[in-house]
Amino acid sequence: MKRRHSFAFAALVTACLALVGCKEDAADNTQASAAPQQSFNWKMVTAWPKNYPGLGTSAERVAERINSMTDGRITIKVYAGGELVPPLEIFDAVSRGTAQMGHGAAYYWKGKTDTAQFFTSVPFGLSAIEMNAWLHKGDGLKLWEEAYAPFGVKPFAIGNSGMQMGGWFNKEINSLDDIKGLKIRMPGLGGEVLDRLGATTVNLPGSEVFTALQTNAIDASDWVNPYNDLAFGLHKAAKYYYYPGWQEPQAVLELIINQEAWNSLPADLQAIVTEAIRAGNADMLDDYTWNNARALAELKDADVQLRRFPNEVLNAMQVESAKVLEDLASKSDLNRRIWDSMQAFQKQITLMHEISEKELYNWRD
Amino acid sequence: MKRRHSFAFAALVTACLALVGCKEDAADNTQASAAPQQSFNWKMVTAWPKNYPGLGTSAERVAERINSMTDGRITIKVYAGGELVPPLEIFDAVSRGTAQMGHGAAYYWKGKTDTAQFFTSVPFGLSAIEMNAWLHKGDGLKLWEEAYAPFGVKPFAIGNSGMQMGGWFNKEINSLDDIKGLKIRMPGLGGEVLDRLGATTVNLPGSEVFTALQTNAIDASDWVNPYNDLAFGLHKAAKYYYYPGWQEPQAVLELIINQEAWNSLPADLQAIVTEAIRAGNADMLDDYTWNNARALAELKDADVQLRRFPNEVLNAMQVESAKVLEDLASKSDLNRRIWDSMQAFQKQITLMHEISEKELYNWRD
Repeated sequence: MKRRHSFAFAALVTACLALVGCKEDAADNTQASAAPQQSFNWKMVTAWPKNYPGLGTSAERVAERINSMTDGRITIKVYAGGELVPPLEIFDAVSRGTAQMGHGAAYYWKGKTDTAQFFTSVPFGLSAIEMNAWLHKGDGLKLWEEAYAPFGVKPFAIGNSGMQMGGWFNKEINSLDDIKGLKIRMPGLGGEVLDRLGATTVNLPGSEVFTALQTNAIDASDWVNPYNDLAFGLHKAAKYYYYPGWQEPQAVLELIINQEAWNSLPADLQAIVTEAIRAGNADMLDDYTWNNARALAELKDADVQLRRFPNEVLNAMQVESAKVLEDLASKSDLNRRIWDSMQAFQKQITLMHEISEKELYNWRD
Repeated sequence: MKRRHSFAFAALVTACLALVGCKEDAADNTQASAAPQQSFNWKMVTAWPKNYPGLGTSAERVAERINSMTDGRITIKVYAGGELVPPLEIFDAVSRGTAQMGHGAAYYWKGKTDTAQFFTSVPFGLSAIEMNAWLHKGDGLKLWEEAYAPFGVKPFAIGNSGMQMGGWFNKEINSLDDIKGLKIRMPGLGGEVLDRLGATTVNLPGSEVFTALQTNAIDASDWVNPYNDLAFGLHKAAKYYYYPGWQEPQAVLELIINQEAWNSLPADLQAIVTEAIRAGNADMLDDYTWNNARALAELKDADVQLRRFPNEVLNAMQVESAKVLEDLASKSDLNRRIWDSMQAFQKQITLMHEISEKELYNWRD
């Protein structure tokens, strides 16, 4: 099985500095005192380079806020990907309690449970505000908790990148034929869709995307959206910037907590952590919304060639996406319940946004 | 000057029970002790009936969460509109310290400062996620603080209704001529636009909208969107439900805090209150997104006639809106800076959302 992960920020960090720092302090949450001032020194392992825009900064922000809100009763040390454990081992590290917290994305753990993929992004699926509503007012978060419970891990949504872009291409896509044989880095469910349409999807760490594009080792690669793509300078390695990001109309980032560590917190600290994460979830979307606008303007100034996928291609992607998702849903009772719940909400909210957001975005041009 | 306010929930409460409860407790935040366990018993006055869907529930939620997060160091008693002060006197009450907190909407205070109107909604302006980005990552919140500083009041965004609907009509709108002489309840900047297009806008408390529509005392009325409109049964009083809600593409709800009361909080409690409000801001949008989808489905089952404003009418509204906003911007240096800042961001984010959200909403149909 190919081990693919989107954002691929995880893979930015190729050096594995695992276990550095492990000896520095035993978890303080085993202190005997039951007094209200009991303190907790936690570790947060992340899938990102230190202060990576939008993602690493989100991890630092939530740790800092929890520290301030608790006046130091909870302190959280944030580890960049590879510093304590490699990015793709975060879930295991939190599950076994090596770290109390992890900051990553659910679809990285599809090797643990294929169910996880629903909780990052679904091609042609919900938008960011819709996904947040399904998670927090519908069954979303409850189903996510159910999926992770066997691992002793409690999930939260810690942010959203908003809608992504279709990716960077050195070949124009004018018809479905241009997808056939296309050598493209594209992770997740989107990659599976392109595979079925005849592309050759490749597994490639994010750190290698620039060079692979520049040397024509690959024809194309997805990444995130202008905020992160500009930071990587990908417009200097590829000719065309394609939209829409059909494969990830939004992408949820996750914060996971070891269930036993969570249970050890008194009620007021549980409330603080919960609300700090909910605020952090909003903050990341604000960050991407603001900086995508700024970065796209900058990319346009640099004469980036924006291209839209032809309708024929988008149609085929949509048909194939439905099949990929149906296959995933059929793999377990839980997957089926999740997919039914998402689809029911998508059907309703599509009617609502057809007469509201869609009208606004169309009219404002 | 007509005193108009949208949502008009404020006006739901016609009985003024002002000052009830005023004697029950002096503000506890004057306690002499500087110990970390100093406690604060605050009052929150709101513009809404007790537990009014989306809005009253938001006020209760943030009060309850702050109580849990602080383990009772801050307790907040929530007052429905009219219970302690009338809805439209919330700003004054918080400014003079009668209550430490208020939960309402900025454009209610346009009689205090016309600048306030920018911080609720702008016709044909930003969407909900865009407004949140401008407030929290752009200059929005800083400018809002500047506007309220002379009153000793500190503002926060406590939620968003998402995009509103165009309103309930008993007359069809087929051309610009149908706007002329139309008797419509429409508050805020949207009302000013319709005035200029020849409508007769009226001032009407929300509690009277149903009867006024049913008896043909008015031809039409705006309200909010399906979540709140269904709760009021407006589909039983009017034939047509018009979209899009050009006048309020989003609407920010606000939480205001008396500046001296804020200053009296130690840093950890300030951090808790700030994050609880930010989480509450996200929670309200999730609530409206979820429940609008559900309520619209229910309205469709009840055979509500959805109608779209003709392009000719929307065009004229957009042209007139730009003039109304330009007039408002020209009234002060601060207004000008706010309008310039919003417009600059709207220009950038429109380009971004044209190749992302807009594509998604158009494609998904």
